[in-house]
Amino acid sequence: MSRGIFVGRFNPFHKGHLKAIMKILKEVGELIIVVGSSEKDYEVENPFTTGERIMMIRAALDEADVEASRYFIIPVPDIHSHKTWVMHIIAYVPPFDVVYSNNVIVTEPFKDMGFAVKPVLLFERELFSATEVRKRMLEDGNWEELVPGAIAEYIKRIKGVERIHRLSETDRV
Amino acid sequence: MSRGIFVGRFNPFHKGHLKAIMKILKEVGELIIVVGSSEKDYEVENPFTTGERIMMIRAALDEADVEASRYFIIPVPDIHSHKTWVMHIIAYVPPFDVVYSNNVIVTEPFKDMGFAVKPVLLFERELFSATEVRKRMLEDGNWEELVPGAIAEYIKRIKGVERIHRLSETDRV
Amino acid sequence: MSRGIFVGRFNPFHKGHLKAIMKILKEVGELIIVVGSSEKDYEVENPFTTGERIMMIRAALDEADVEASRYFIIPVPDIHSHKTWVMHIIAYVPPFDVVYSNNVIVTEPFKDMGFAVKPVLLFERELFSATEVRKRMLEDGNWEELVPGAIAEYIKRIKGVERIHRLSETDRV
Amino acid sequence: MSRGIFVGRFNPFHKGHLKAIMKILKEVGELIIVVGSSEKDYEVENPFTTGERIMMIRAALDEADVEASRYFIIPVPDIHSHKTWVMHIIAYVPPFDVVYSNNVIVTEPFKDMGFAVKPVLLFERELFSATEVRKRMLEDGNWEELVPGAIAEYIKRIKGVERIHRLSETDRV
Amino acid sequence: MSRGIFVGRFNPFHKGHLKAIMKILKEVGELIIVVGSSEKDYEVENPFTTGERIMMIRAALDEADVEASRYFIIPVPDIHSHKTWVMHIIAYVPPFDVVYSNNVIVTEPFKDMGFAVKPVLLFERELFSATEVRKRMLEDGNWEELVPGAIAEYIKRIKGVERIHRLSETDRV
Amino acid sequence: MSRGIFVGRFNPFHKGHLKAIMKILKEVGELIIVVGSSEKDYEVENPFTTGERIMMIRAALDEADVEASRYFIIPVPDIHSHKTWVMHIIAYVPPFDVVYSNNVIVTEPFKDMGFAVKPVLLFERELFSATEVRKRMLEDGNWEELVPGAIAEYIKRIKGVERIHRLSETDRV
Repeated sequence: MSRGIFVGRFNPFHKGHLKAIMKILKEVGELIIVVGSSEKDYEVENPFTTGERIMMIRAALDEADVEASRYFIIPVPDIHSHKTWVMHIIAYVPPFDVVYSNNVIVTEPFKDMGFAVKPVLLFERELFSATEVRKRMLEDGNWEELVPGAIAEYIKRIKGVERIHRLSETDRV
Repeated sequence: MSRGIFVGRFNPFHKGHLKAIMKILKEVGELIIVVGSSEKDYEVENPFTTGERIMMIRAALDEADVEASRYFIIPVPDIHSHKTWVMHIIAYVPPFDVVYSNNVIVTEPFKDMGFAVKPVLLFERELFSATEVRKRMLEDGNWEELVPGAIAEYIKRIKGVERIHRLSETDRV
Repeated sequence: MSRGIFVGRFNPFHKGHLKAIMKILKEVGELIIVVGSSEKDYEVENPFTTGERIMMIRAALDEADVEASRYFIIPVPDIHSHKTWVMHIIAYVPPFDVVYSNNVIVTEPFKDMGFAVKPVLLFERELFSATEVRKRMLEDGNWEELVPGAIAEYIKRIKGVERIHRLSETDRV
Repeated sequence: MSRGIFVGRFNPFHKGHLKAIMKILKEVGELIIVVGSSEKDYEVENPFTTGERIMMIRAALDEADVEASRYFIIPVPDIHSHKTWVMHIIAYVPPFDVVYSNNVIVTEPFKDMGFAVKPVLLFERELFSATEVRKRMLEDGNWEELVPGAIAEYIKRIKGVERIHRLSETDRV
Repeated sequence: MSRGIFVGRFNPFHKGHLKAIMKILKEVGELIIVVGSSEKDYEVENPFTTGERIMMIRAALDEADVEASRYFIIPVPDIHSHKTWVMHIIAYVPPFDVVYSNNVIVTEPFKDMGFAVKPVLLFERELFSATEVRKRMLEDGNWEELVPGAIAEYIKRIKGVERIHRLSETDRV
Repeated sequence: MSRGIFVGRFNPFHKGHLKAIMKILKEVGELIIVVGSSEKDYEVENPFTTGERIMMIRAALDEADVEASRYFIIPVPDIHSHKTWVMHIIAYVPPFDVVYSNNVIVTEPFKDMGFAVKPVLLFERELFSATEVRKRMLEDGNWEELVPGAIAEYIKRIKGVERIHRLSETDRV
């Protein structure tokens, strides 16, 4: 059985993430979902805590009827050296065979170490991005259509949109 | 549905951990298993990587027929201030109601913040401890009887006992 | 006797800070003044060392005839997780009852933990801000009118304006 | 007016610290009291939080009728390089002229940088030490006689002795 | 024999660096070349690893017939406090007498500590800068003319230009 | 031309290090000498600064008539994860082919990544070790016979033995 890895920050998790994961799960037995920048939260570009991001992923995959035994959700803190980051990931997660990423900076060192690398099918990339979701949240646009239903509900329950507004207004005395 | 939290370093995961978790799972709907000191590995007292510790927990719970939907395995790096650590945990994991721990240093601040706290039933504490497992590994004793079968097998596959021997012999030039 | 807390970076301390503190001191017995981002200095947005910022606060409060027994000045380094930051503050300073802040990101978690929270009366907010002071320093404008007399004198003595000019000119080879 | 500096960890503050400070205050106009290892707490050798240590120092000096305007209490986190530490201190505290320390490792680099250095008169060194206080706390001995009255009272109020017992018993699962 | 120090990030090393170093080497017996921000790599503004930057400097100085006994190449990680940075450098490198820098923020604290400070002769500053080199790489301009021949060759061999393109395109899912 | 790598802490550099390096230099064109734990100094087990350790290595190799073009001396700070450390080294130093080490923990991951690994010939291991040198320094024994002449001289000039005495006596108030 093969095991894949997919890295994101999931601030927040959106339909693009979900579609990509659903497709990958057709190709691998198990998938490791890495929650990157896990040491950050309550920042304009990283508004959600790691715990909240884990909750979102679980909620979306439950809603999509994906069994929990098919995936691992693993938060990994950033390190400065991106060269070293590849090994940092290897130390932090279960062994894997296939790296799913479109980012050559990520895929190249993994290739050099003998891993298989496959592109991530990104569905309407411009539309489905966390940046776009946060932008719509700030502009009171329709962000809900960009995220799975369970996520929209969850973000409302934790008052995530209000938080993003406040984070963007934050003035330092 | 209630959600519990249980913190360990799992270096390695042993039968005492498993019994405690099985008992907790009768009391809560879901359990968060925190893998502490996640930034450390290949040290005498922390020989296994975070990825390996996650694999062990999953393997032991699979063997015990626990459904993956019942638990989260979440690695959390150490921070210096133990006072602050409580909030660090809260930021890193999904929301929870019950803290399972016998360590008053851990339980007291959680109590202060309104969490329910319950003791962990530790089965033959002197025998089933990671320290004892590592000691037997170093002395070529019967460490296998202290860990679930799936773990013994896993540790053999990754040559964990040899690693512990080497780590203890390591001489710095 | 109640004890309040007020957080700033004080780069530099200005009349808006002073007015806010004078007002708070009418409401509490003692005030904890937290000097945030204490690990940073000699940067365009954080030009003063922690030691210099402490000196400024003391000088301004001496000038305003505030007794030293009424307040604590406590430098606190940043941490990445703002969620965790609340507990980081609690570990770093004497116990307090009232949090003075207009920043919902700060006030909300404190409220959740049972603290009283009060707004800071900011006097002519646009004018009296550290950003405006630094801007005027760089443009050779009248920054002195924005800070207490003792601070203007102190900044001149340590050649703070020249430092800010140099920091902004800094070219990296 | 001269300003002195005195560095300790104050885990906890004891009569030896107080006597030393009282003597120094006869020689300098103002004293900077640095609370070292400020990032640590709830450890066997660093049981008190930085906030608690600040409270102790203030309480002891209040009890001894020392005016708050005579001193600064400034927490400073550790850094690895002790060579660099000297400058780290200089960046963190108000300017000073005299370093009070018996530790040549501390005094020598300060001397090299042109500071005056004076020894600390340590009163019955073997008896009055934080190590001895913590030891007596653990052995239920008479620790109270080693600390100022206000400190004994404070430690009892925050249940510090119980905390030290628990920290020493802490067993890691 | 005097020993000088010259600090840069060398991302990448260019002809301006080389000319400056050649001139300094006429004035000092030995030169310490500090590779700053050594903990960073594979970032848009810090694309090269520390190891690659060391290779470039060695290659350029070999090509210029500078004997290796004339210089030290020493990577130094950043620290937050620039005030403390001066001492951080002193702890990290062999003793030196002369600091070569045009940056008053760097030169002033060194002067205060009794070091001689000399300006760096920067040859056509606007043209020969690492920022300009990286800009031309991104715009497929003539970056080769800005760097020594050995560096151009080295960057091509490690596919540095492609890396910079990819780093700038990196999209975060 | 092959390039080897040899890792040590060199606290201090001794004759065992020198013999090992001389032998390796017969097998490789260039040698990378990594000064580990570079962020530490003025500790009982790490008494020398990184700058001093670099000076010692250069002095010993000059005395042994090794040309500076044959080697690189590169300080590398520690990281917690030893698994990740291998890649951390690769990011910090020029490319290499052969790893010289007797430590299986070090050699195994390098082997896995395709590097050649060779043992270090350690000459009278019990005698020639940095631990033994520091022990003799503390006990006023004949430490000089364990280090190259140039190192003995250098350590005397910087009063290294006195420093080690003081570090071991350091009492924390």
